[in-house]
Amino acid sequence: MRNPDNTPEPLFEVAEFGSFELFSPHVDATVWFFKDLLGMVETERSGDSVFLRGWEDPYKHTLKITERDTAGMGYAGWRTTSKQALERRVRAIEQTGLGRGWVEGECGVGAAYEFALPDGAVQRLNWEVDYYEPPEQAQSRLLNRVQRRPLTGVPIKAIDHLNLMAGDVTANKEFCAEVLGFRLSEHIVMSDDVEAGAWMRLQTRSHDVAFTKDATGVGGRLHHVAFLYGNSQHLNDACDVLTDHGLELEAGPAHHGISQAEFLYVFEPGGNRIELVGQLGYQVHDPSFEPITWKQDTLDNAIIWYGAPLPAEFDTYGTPNVLPTAYRTPNGYIAAEMRAIHGV
Amino acid sequence: MRNPDNTPEPLFEVAEFGSFELFSPHVDATVWFFKDLLGMVETERSGDSVFLRGWEDPYKHTLKITERDTAGMGYAGWRTTSKQALERRVRAIEQTGLGRGWVEGECGVGAAYEFALPDGAVQRLNWEVDYYEPPEQAQSRLLNRVQRRPLTGVPIKAIDHLNLMAGDVTANKEFCAEVLGFRLSEHIVMSDDVEAGAWMRLQTRSHDVAFTKDATGVGGRLHHVAFLYGNSQHLNDACDVLTDHGLELEAGPAHHGISQAEFLYVFEPGGNRIELVGQLGYQVHDPSFEPITWKQDTLDNAIIWYGAPLPAEFDTYGTPNVLPTAYRTPNGYIAAEMRAIHGV
Amino acid sequence: MRNPDNTPEPLFEVAEFGSFELFSPHVDATVWFFKDLLGMVETERSGDSVFLRGWEDPYKHTLKITERDTAGMGYAGWRTTSKQALERRVRAIEQTGLGRGWVEGECGVGAAYEFALPDGAVQRLNWEVDYYEPPEQAQSRLLNRVQRRPLTGVPIKAIDHLNLMAGDVTANKEFCAEVLGFRLSEHIVMSDDVEAGAWMRLQTRSHDVAFTKDATGVGGRLHHVAFLYGNSQHLNDACDVLTDHGLELEAGPAHHGISQAEFLYVFEPGGNRIELVGQLGYQVHDPSFEPITWKQDTLDNAIIWYGAPLPAEFDTYGTPNVLPTAYRTPNGYIAAEMRAIHGV
Amino acid sequence: MRNPDNTPEPLFEVAEFGSFELFSPHVDATVWFFKDLLGMVETERSGDSVFLRGWEDPYKHTLKITERDTAGMGYAGWRTTSKQALERRVRAIEQTGLGRGWVEGECGVGAAYEFALPDGAVQRLNWEVDYYEPPEQAQSRLLNRVQRRPLTGVPIKAIDHLNLMAGDVTANKEFCAEVLGFRLSEHIVMSDDVEAGAWMRLQTRSHDVAFTKDATGVGGRLHHVAFLYGNSQHLNDACDVLTDHGLELEAGPAHHGISQAEFLYVFEPGGNRIELVGQLGYQVHDPSFEPITWKQDTLDNAIIWYGAPLPAEFDTYGTPNVLPTAYRTPNGYIAAEMRAIHGV
Repeated sequence: MRNPDNTPEPLFEVAEFGSFELFSPHVDATVWFFKDLLGMVETERSGDSVFLRGWEDPYKHTLKITERDTAGMGYAGWRTTSKQALERRVRAIEQTGLGRGWVEGECGVGAAYEFALPDGAVQRLNWEVDYYEPPEQAQSRLLNRVQRRPLTGVPIKAIDHLNLMAGDVTANKEFCAEVLGFRLSEHIVMSDDVEAGAWMRLQTRSHDVAFTKDATGVGGRLHHVAFLYGNSQHLNDACDVLTDHGLELEAGPAHHGISQAEFLYVFEPGGNRIELVGQLGYQVHDPSFEPITWKQDTLDNAIIWYGAPLPAEFDTYGTPNVLPTAYRTPNGYIAAEMRAIHGV
Repeated sequence: MRNPDNTPEPLFEVAEFGSFELFSPHVDATVWFFKDLLGMVETERSGDSVFLRGWEDPYKHTLKITERDTAGMGYAGWRTTSKQALERRVRAIEQTGLGRGWVEGECGVGAAYEFALPDGAVQRLNWEVDYYEPPEQAQSRLLNRVQRRPLTGVPIKAIDHLNLMAGDVTANKEFCAEVLGFRLSEHIVMSDDVEAGAWMRLQTRSHDVAFTKDATGVGGRLHHVAFLYGNSQHLNDACDVLTDHGLELEAGPAHHGISQAEFLYVFEPGGNRIELVGQLGYQVHDPSFEPITWKQDTLDNAIIWYGAPLPAEFDTYGTPNVLPTAYRTPNGYIAAEMRAIHGV
Repeated sequence: MRNPDNTPEPLFEVAEFGSFELFSPHVDATVWFFKDLLGMVETERSGDSVFLRGWEDPYKHTLKITERDTAGMGYAGWRTTSKQALERRVRAIEQTGLGRGWVEGECGVGAAYEFALPDGAVQRLNWEVDYYEPPEQAQSRLLNRVQRRPLTGVPIKAIDHLNLMAGDVTANKEFCAEVLGFRLSEHIVMSDDVEAGAWMRLQTRSHDVAFTKDATGVGGRLHHVAFLYGNSQHLNDACDVLTDHGLELEAGPAHHGISQAEFLYVFEPGGNRIELVGQLGYQVHDPSFEPITWKQDTLDNAIIWYGAPLPAEFDTYGTPNVLPTAYRTPNGYIAAEMRAIHGV
Repeated sequence: MRNPDNTPEPLFEVAEFGSFELFSPHVDATVWFFKDLLGMVETERSGDSVFLRGWEDPYKHTLKITERDTAGMGYAGWRTTSKQALERRVRAIEQTGLGRGWVEGECGVGAAYEFALPDGAVQRLNWEVDYYEPPEQAQSRLLNRVQRRPLTGVPIKAIDHLNLMAGDVTANKEFCAEVLGFRLSEHIVMSDDVEAGAWMRLQTRSHDVAFTKDATGVGGRLHHVAFLYGNSQHLNDACDVLTDHGLELEAGPAHHGISQAEFLYVFEPGGNRIELVGQLGYQVHDPSFEPITWKQDTLDNAIIWYGAPLPAEFDTYGTPNVLPTAYRTPNGYIAAEMRAIHGV
């Protein structure tokens, strides 16, 4: 029986990936992408920012889109399992020297403690939230449903997970495990024992955050933020709509080995890579789940279970972009042309 | 902001519904149902019992089928989040006077502490497990997959949840909440303030256990045990196969309001009601999720979101059966005829 | 070998169900149902009528909604396989005495010859059509696609088939077979040798028209007109949206035995029964396909393969309605309330 | 109105693609692929051949697998719409000088007239058939169903279409149109006015046969024969099972622009390319459907609507194979290893 007796008990203090700030040099087009095509609901505009949520997201916002000259991320927000857990985690972060202090709440997310991961990617931790209260015409007859399914586009349900390009995967992984209580689900260990990727979970999702090696060496960049459909047909519908509107599809729909999830990678008009998750991968209910280790000889199956291989730029393109030359996705579409056609 | 400051922190000590013993007066036919039609994998036979698992179940068994004159349940097994959590929960159970003591492990489930719910339904709590190790010809190329997808029937993935018919819903609910740390997701409160049903979760599943009012007043009986497909097409395939083999389908495929899950209820040849879950309902990642209360005026939507109403016997038929007259499911098929046709 | 040598060769002169006029006492609400919820595209308004098409319908309209005090149908339009075939069919109809003469074309459907079925239901036959030409912002990048998938509601693809309530099923069936060349796919023959239903096809669809016995004896009424999704998930999405907007769902989603199609029956706000087809049933490519005969003892499987039984009013409610008392669908929703909520 | 008055009336004399002979140097492995993994039903063995059918194929066989040293096709069989139509088509073929005379029937397909296409690919035309009569334990309760859904593998429904590599696309297209009455649905016309591909239909399927330019110049070879699922989930299940058994997947699942169908290309263990069709593409009910012409500037969308580009060998690999060097599919699996693992 595989049941270590003397391991320390797991920490259940961070509950979920709750909010994310995305920088876009083309905010109108980015908002059109998320609202008109993917059916997200706008809940607030303030300053340079537009706040959105998926129709099953319970809070007032999960996605904040902010105008900036360069694509990339502002911060990723995580919600703790209780007020007390927040206080304990803040103390633990402070001891690492990576804490930055408290910031004010915004659009339904309460006061948050800001800190950086070892690579510099900015994170926030909070407990307090405001729940979304739909206007009367969007209220559902189902009491356990936040709002009615939108009648716009191919509506994504909720924010899902975050993937960061890391200069040092192991350093970020260890910080998340030790300071925040993330559990490792899968990782890639190359022949030189260097970790090329780590997928970590909070509750039952196979991963809430992933760190993948930034092949450019820069690190601390956004690889992608993911949103959930939870079924294949909706992902196929999204592929159809995005293709027919001239969006740049990078890869998919196909199935990863790691996580077993069905994915699409598409560039939103601001240049950030967005993942849309079709059929969910595996869920972890097993409390003694042993992390999976992929090595060079099994790597192909890890990345792609079935479907076509990923383009080489999957390992080098992130936001902010540091590639010296333009990256054209395999479907050959061009964002500037697409924006011109749709006037966004 | 809805964030109670002074609530006690949640307990994360029971992780999952891990195993279940089903009594059948027609073991061969029951095993044929789960193996040949639903693609479960047999891992052991011993004494009067056959041990099975779904192809994504990580352990050596999740379902134990035992020969008995009367249909019903043996016990439901729950796995804790750690060895220490098991010890703490056993102490808590002992204090309630409902403990029955330790029982030996069987087929990959280690030593377990047995106890009864207030209604008498037998439960077990364990930590130690053995993982399933597939024979070579069933090993998957995917390292995070327990085994290859079976080539038999319409293979269910895993055990999902348990529904018990309770004489006193509230007493069972309170025991599970206070002693075991289950969180209430939804409940039905009738006009006389009596709870007619309670759906409770451990991790992110909308419910791992449900108690529904036994309209016969008996209580402590099995309403159904549920297995997971996680998508609509497989549930449709199962409906087709089960119908064409003459199984008694009671209700569905349709969508519950409560949990939002897509369901089928079918009687396995031994007479127990089995639920097959198609598309998953909602998941709870929100740590301050407020339980949903359904009352008489919203009850119809709670039970059926869309699809046909349930038959009246849904509230009275359970196993062991106490109905004075035969209960014929709406599709009119008869188990004895079905067993004769298929020779099981 | 089952290959009759001396049977006359089949007639291929009527190609498809091309257009349909629906009467509604609540045109605005009916149009909202088809446009906002089901994503049909409005192409013209003229007089009391609004013209719509599904996004894969190639012609300028397939559905004409006309204001009338009473729900029901105007006419059903059928397109021939050639101009010469139209001329031959008109001559054949004229010989039956049921011809009514030529009527002018409208909204992309050219001049048509109008006639009545034996029961009085009005039909039209035409050859000339205008194809839909989408505005620039709806043009697809796919040359074989009429337009881009709409971003509104749960868009149905196309008109599918027609079901009429007949006083005399056999008379209508024979007219369609002999005069128009429809082939019988399935029929129900009761113990008194009376046909209770007949499903007839033109090309590969299991049926383009069905006649079912009007249990009230009136006949010549609309049972339902059907629209196509062609997959289960879209039908499920439609069920969800329609339920949450308070539409009256009568039956489904479930699977008919006859045709094997997955169906939903819903009343549009004007009171007409509409079928939405999810997963297609079987297709007939076999040129010597023998019609299926269902009798009393197999009738249950014919009507419902799996899913709940149909309500009794399925055999008596049609439009115009002749029931003496209000017919409330099983989900208990009320059209007038729904219209008030949505202001349509 | 687009309605040519003076065009000759269409010919409806060939009904369907009814049977196909596949050559395999590894018959046992090929039969294992079609039976154990794809759930086809074996109906006869005779000489070097094994006869199979999909569970919805009405006839005694649709696929004949014959042992030969070299992969490739024996013949493709087509069924006429009547006995008289067969006689007329035979006379028409005889006039072209490509007729080869009558051959005896086999396994439910009656006497057939054999002929060659201009490129030499052998075809047969027949009218008489025997219908499959399932053994008692496979009989369905549904009268319109040939047999129960098999409980083996991921069962494909039926044979679907044929794709031949042509030295001269136009010559084959014109023969099929003029002599057999196939209608052109789509074609590719390159800048030098040479046709690079032609997709032709008999009834409503977007195509029953396709001719694509053999980039090696050889022609008369098998590109692929296709089998139908008709929905995405079953195709995904097949991908999963085929990948996990080590089969060589070449491309997909993805969506073609031409035909809009969802495809997978996989090499069966004998080396022939097999297409599995997921979600159906468009159907043609419109009797004046104008063929779609794709040119160099729209070709990318024609080949792939969304999903990854096809490998270069898609245009050069066919059976019999004429490539000088081994062709390894993108998933890197090797047929000989796969056969060794599974002992076939």
